[in-house]
Amino acid sequence: MPKISSKAAKMPASPIRKLVPFAETAKKKGIKIYHLNIGQPDIETPASLLNAVKNADIKVLEYSHSAGIESYRKKLCGYYKQYAIDVDPSDIIVTTGGSEAIQIALMTCFNPGDEIIIPEPFYANYNGFSTASDIVIKPIRSYIESGFALPPIEEFEKLITPKTKGIMICNPGNPTGYLYSEQELESLKELVLKYDLFLLSDEVYREFCYDGKEYASVMHLKGIENNTILLDSISKRYSACGARIGCMISKNKEVIASALKFAQARLSPPTFGQIGAEAAIDTPASYFEGVKKEYVARRDFVIDALNKIPGVFCPKPSGAFYCIARLPIDDADKFCQWLLEDFNYNNQTVMLAPATGFYSTPGEGKNEVRLAYVLKIEDLKNAVLCLEKALEVYNKK
Amino acid sequence: MPKISSKAAKMPASPIRKLVPFAETAKKKGIKIYHLNIGQPDIETPASLLNAVKNADIKVLEYSHSAGIESYRKKLCGYYKQYAIDVDPSDIIVTTGGSEAIQIALMTCFNPGDEIIIPEPFYANYNGFSTASDIVIKPIRSYIESGFALPPIEEFEKLITPKTKGIMICNPGNPTGYLYSEQELESLKELVLKYDLFLLSDEVYREFCYDGKEYASVMHLKGIENNTILLDSISKRYSACGARIGCMISKNKEVIASALKFAQARLSPPTFGQIGAEAAIDTPASYFEGVKKEYVARRDFVIDALNKIPGVFCPKPSGAFYCIARLPIDDADKFCQWLLEDFNYNNQTVMLAPATGFYSTPGEGKNEVRLAYVLKIEDLKNAVLCLEKALEVYNKK
Repeated sequence: MPKISSKAAKMPASPIRKLVPFAETAKKKGIKIYHLNIGQPDIETPASLLNAVKNADIKVLEYSHSAGIESYRKKLCGYYKQYAIDVDPSDIIVTTGGSEAIQIALMTCFNPGDEIIIPEPFYANYNGFSTASDIVIKPIRSYIESGFALPPIEEFEKLITPKTKGIMICNPGNPTGYLYSEQELESLKELVLKYDLFLLSDEVYREFCYDGKEYASVMHLKGIENNTILLDSISKRYSACGARIGCMISKNKEVIASALKFAQARLSPPTFGQIGAEAAIDTPASYFEGVKKEYVARRDFVIDALNKIPGVFCPKPSGAFYCIARLPIDDADKFCQWLLEDFNYNNQTVMLAPATGFYSTPGEGKNEVRLAYVLKIEDLKNAVLCLEKALEVYNKK
Repeated sequence: MPKISSKAAKMPASPIRKLVPFAETAKKKGIKIYHLNIGQPDIETPASLLNAVKNADIKVLEYSHSAGIESYRKKLCGYYKQYAIDVDPSDIIVTTGGSEAIQIALMTCFNPGDEIIIPEPFYANYNGFSTASDIVIKPIRSYIESGFALPPIEEFEKLITPKTKGIMICNPGNPTGYLYSEQELESLKELVLKYDLFLLSDEVYREFCYDGKEYASVMHLKGIENNTILLDSISKRYSACGARIGCMISKNKEVIASALKFAQARLSPPTFGQIGAEAAIDTPASYFEGVKKEYVARRDFVIDALNKIPGVFCPKPSGAFYCIARLPIDDADKFCQWLLEDFNYNNQTVMLAPATGFYSTPGEGKNEVRLAYVLKIEDLKNAVLCLEKALEVYNKK
């Protein structure tokens, strides 16, 4: 029997999906599970997106342009303009989800063995994409006490080696919900210029900025246009995760020309998703206002309720729909598994993501979990109550 | 300005798309172009597929399972059964097109620097996927004189080194249209067993086998179930290239478990496409009979007409909808560009794919082109006439 590649063997299993078999067993026992473990919003997809797909007059479902349907890319420029991001259709490569934008951007900028600095905790699949491309992640620790603010630039600088080719951030952050300030981005800019690095920014939660805080994009930074790459997705924006439409954007012509070669090899992004995405750009502001209001209410409830539980600390995030909470436990993986395997409160339990999967430094995040507040407040109430009761039982074991 | 990776620099530009700018210029001059350069069929997508997407009752367009919607995978097993391919839903990972099936299979089986033997000429994007994963293709030459039959096994054996991890074939073949016989597959089986290699088989043209010839799959080979990986796509089967739905299949549990980790990192294949693909499995046999009849008529016309042109030789393929023709020219790239740039016959010309892009050995295929007979016979007539007239002019230059 031939052996799989050592790369495949090293490929991390999804930290969230590791728990799925336990959740399935719990469900079979008739236990209701509140899923705060995954960023799958319950928000309805805008009718404009769904109707455009329904009404598409297709005879032959053809490949689209490898960089994405041209009318869609043109319209996207108008979308970005609202955020003071000035781009041209030729700066955009439409991808199969944000996932592919990350994969193509990594391959375009990094060779096997090259290093990328990423503040941790970070989106767990960055590990997978880096392993797939044989890129080495150099994590830089951010801390729950500061709400996961950008680590001091001196700390970044300590990690820079001749192999360092870039820095990646997620803003607003998954899993932290942290929203980087203009000042933080400016400090990154200095570093990027000093060492001539790529700056990759995953900004898929742009629509989810709260408390009147300003969203700042790496695309706003002047003088590093050839260094910056924006990674984006419509999955969260329009609650359209299944459309699998994202994009990568750069003003660096060489980056886009090279990325296009990877895009051409895989032919094209999905046609139906692009048709929906193009129509969704006309989604009225009222839709987002409603969604934002709902998330703010959910966040306010969850953060408040979590911090009332003895021994729990959870900073209030300004963006996205995640938070990281520190719990009075010693092993988040075991605890999250126990919640599904051995615990229920009135036949209900909660599924959380152990934060260990979001750290790349071994041993970090062992007393932290990520919660995605993607459920109705009524459900969140029950979920947090389950967590509270669970902690009481768990710590008496 | 930071430098792109040397991997990106090495990434081959699509040999077909290199000509696109010349085609655009020709179009602007009012010249009608017959596109025989790309495998985008003009056949209508089955109504079942399109209607399923139209009628899908979606409120929240969610991620699907990373391995694909379960009901779809179940139904796929029934589809494969028709071809005497016995698989279980857990053997299948639904992918974003056949492209992603190839990418994931390569990463699962090959480390950077590992070697894969592929009969050439081969589907040009195998080059791109191998470059993206730092895998080395060892081409093995097949010849137009034998219609691109499988090279002798001794020739394969000469290429095997300690780095050889697998062999990849395309059956029925793109770009050759060659249909491997059971005997040819059996001889590959012996080699695969002897050196414990992976055998990857791209069988996306399964529906397009002509002249009553039997389709033989690597999945039919007994005793190498742990070595074989089937790569598939619905793009050609249902003329649904834009759905971006494919799959990889293996009985090797370790391969599938590892491939699933790559699949989980990118979350899920497109939901709309999967809904359509699931419904399309019920496409009546009459649809395929009609399509096949049409392709046979096109093939018969094209092959006959090509072989009537002085100095042209084109073997008759038994599958897919491509053929490779040898032309009385010395540089197919220059000739194909010239057809667009400097030639027209009654304001019409033809776009072909230079075969050089399908060979990985430098210098091979310089007097060959690939034609995709994906147009109506009326158009094919005009296209071949253009080619005939063009060759007259070109060789008098």
